[in-house]
Amino acid sequence: MLLLDSLKGQRVPRFPVWLMRQAGRYMPQYRSLREKERDFLSFCKNVDLAIKASLLPIELLDVDAVIIFSDILVPLEPMGVKVYFEEGESPRLSWDGRVESLKNISFSQVEFVGEIIRGVKREVNQVPVIGFCGAPFTLMAYMLEGGSSKSYKNTKLFMWNKREDYQRLMGLLVENLLEYLKGQIRAGADLLQVFDSWAMYLSYEDFEEYAQSYLKLLFEELKKFSPTPLIYFFRGPSDFLKPLERLSVDAFSVDWTVDIIDAMRRSEKAFQGNLDPTILYAEEELIVKRAIDFLRCIPRRSKYVFNLGHGLMPDMDLRKVKLLVDTVKGYRLL
Amino acid sequence: MLLLDSLKGQRVPRFPVWLMRQAGRYMPQYRSLREKERDFLSFCKNVDLAIKASLLPIELLDVDAVIIFSDILVPLEPMGVKVYFEEGESPRLSWDGRVESLKNISFSQVEFVGEIIRGVKREVNQVPVIGFCGAPFTLMAYMLEGGSSKSYKNTKLFMWNKREDYQRLMGLLVENLLEYLKGQIRAGADLLQVFDSWAMYLSYEDFEEYAQSYLKLLFEELKKFSPTPLIYFFRGPSDFLKPLERLSVDAFSVDWTVDIIDAMRRSEKAFQGNLDPTILYAEEELIVKRAIDFLRCIPRRSKYVFNLGHGLMPDMDLRKVKLLVDTVKGYRLL
Repeated sequence: MLLLDSLKGQRVPRFPVWLMRQAGRYMPQYRSLREKERDFLSFCKNVDLAIKASLLPIELLDVDAVIIFSDILVPLEPMGVKVYFEEGESPRLSWDGRVESLKNISFSQVEFVGEIIRGVKREVNQVPVIGFCGAPFTLMAYMLEGGSSKSYKNTKLFMWNKREDYQRLMGLLVENLLEYLKGQIRAGADLLQVFDSWAMYLSYEDFEEYAQSYLKLLFEELKKFSPTPLIYFFRGPSDFLKPLERLSVDAFSVDWTVDIIDAMRRSEKAFQGNLDPTILYAEEELIVKRAIDFLRCIPRRSKYVFNLGHGLMPDMDLRKVKLLVDTVKGYRLL
Repeated sequence: MLLLDSLKGQRVPRFPVWLMRQAGRYMPQYRSLREKERDFLSFCKNVDLAIKASLLPIELLDVDAVIIFSDILVPLEPMGVKVYFEEGESPRLSWDGRVESLKNISFSQVEFVGEIIRGVKREVNQVPVIGFCGAPFTLMAYMLEGGSSKSYKNTKLFMWNKREDYQRLMGLLVENLLEYLKGQIRAGADLLQVFDSWAMYLSYEDFEEYAQSYLKLLFEELKKFSPTPLIYFFRGPSDFLKPLERLSVDAFSVDWTVDIIDAMRRSEKAFQGNLDPTILYAEEELIVKRAIDFLRCIPRRSKYVFNLGHGLMPDMDLRKVKLLVDTVKGYRLL
């Protein structure tokens, strides 16, 4: 499979491409599916609809990977965290705040995710299926802020002041994510991506001390279980790549502020990214030009997967997204 | 003066310290002053009140520099941009959108800034007075978004699509900022800081192409006029330090995501920063501990000024801010 080959550093005729949030509100077809199940979490749990949503980017964009339709907050529910999604708003979370009340999960409690993976696998051929989860720090921050935040004050104070509780909560998240990702591998996921959307709110020193050690544990344990390739996505600081280099992860997905050419030169890992998604608001000619200019800078033999620096937005235009995908696919390496 | 000595790399008995937004709503004394002039821009233009506000951190914190009380949007008004501040909200801007309607400014139009500098200078001794402005990209982004933004879509599309207008607007901003900063130097500013709050929304490639060249011009022209030291502040990506290294700027002020130790090792410039301001919400013991731990990592002979990675917040506690300043001042190098 092209994407897995490129991650491994095998010679490929063109760079593989998929896009974060490739199945989403920017697609009229997705919006129609969503009307059948208005509550977002119910939609994620409706195996038939989630499979259909996952497959839309294959039908409409012909991308090189399917990421299963789900949400990073899904494994928090069986732990004892209530998760609410209001239309157009960021999610809200509630729990009693006592770490000891949180539960270990079993994949059977989120078996619908396994069913989605198996269902998607049955429908695709020669295209890898990507499973995913949120990183421990990002999930903990959601739990402690009760949603998104401007300063992540609660999260940081908890981390600094309540060292034992912090270690216990992060330890539990690692265990649960391990169970969750192992279940996805057993169900047939060819590739896993771990999303650390909020890592950039941590200082460099705190990232090393409070986030990286748990990522290390998660990735090591996962690699003991299976050689399934692992991509780690984070927003922001390229300095974080230095301590991350030592982890047993196969690829980094970085945002547009990172000098990806320089980062690839310094690293043994594969890279994914990092075009500024805002380009999709531009005229078609400029989208093509900037994508080609960008691809020309990537050395031909790179272990590389094309993606944007962040997810697609609801007000983007499907035709332009398709044009971007076609442009990347038309850029030949051999 | 300690701060200027440290910037130049002279041996200093302790690291100098000042804090971004050190005169602000977290101070009860500042809130009392503000009551005398509720409109924020009127407050900035009230020379007597602005001098009093500028001096509060000297009286209450005994910091090593006074930054004049003002706002980065001040020089946009005489250019023909309307600027509105609503209490507790981010500013809104409006103009007719035609670059050719914007005007060259003369420092006499913002002479109150010169008066504030002269007034502050009269009151302080052995403490440098910092003048400042917004960076061209950040000001342009304010103008094109009409305020702050989530994606900076308008700014980027303008930059990509309307190359000539972009060059004209950025050129005009550079000319006006040059006039504005020269006026501040003439009035007696000992040091200047340029704030690029939104640079991190640009991709690495775009930063080099669309922002850095104008900073280069601004800094070069300013250095021809005066050797007054220049600090460039930006949020985020440490990768930006590479192209910035070549500019005629004396110091970089970086946020907490940057590995400042490594950045100092790679650079000839002085550094300012970069403690995570969130620490000020912690207990006093932890504030002291983390500040000392941080200072211990900074090599003793560094060209370095202590500051936070970003400005103080209104809900912070003056006593804790004072404790942080005292801790830094108590950390002896000789």
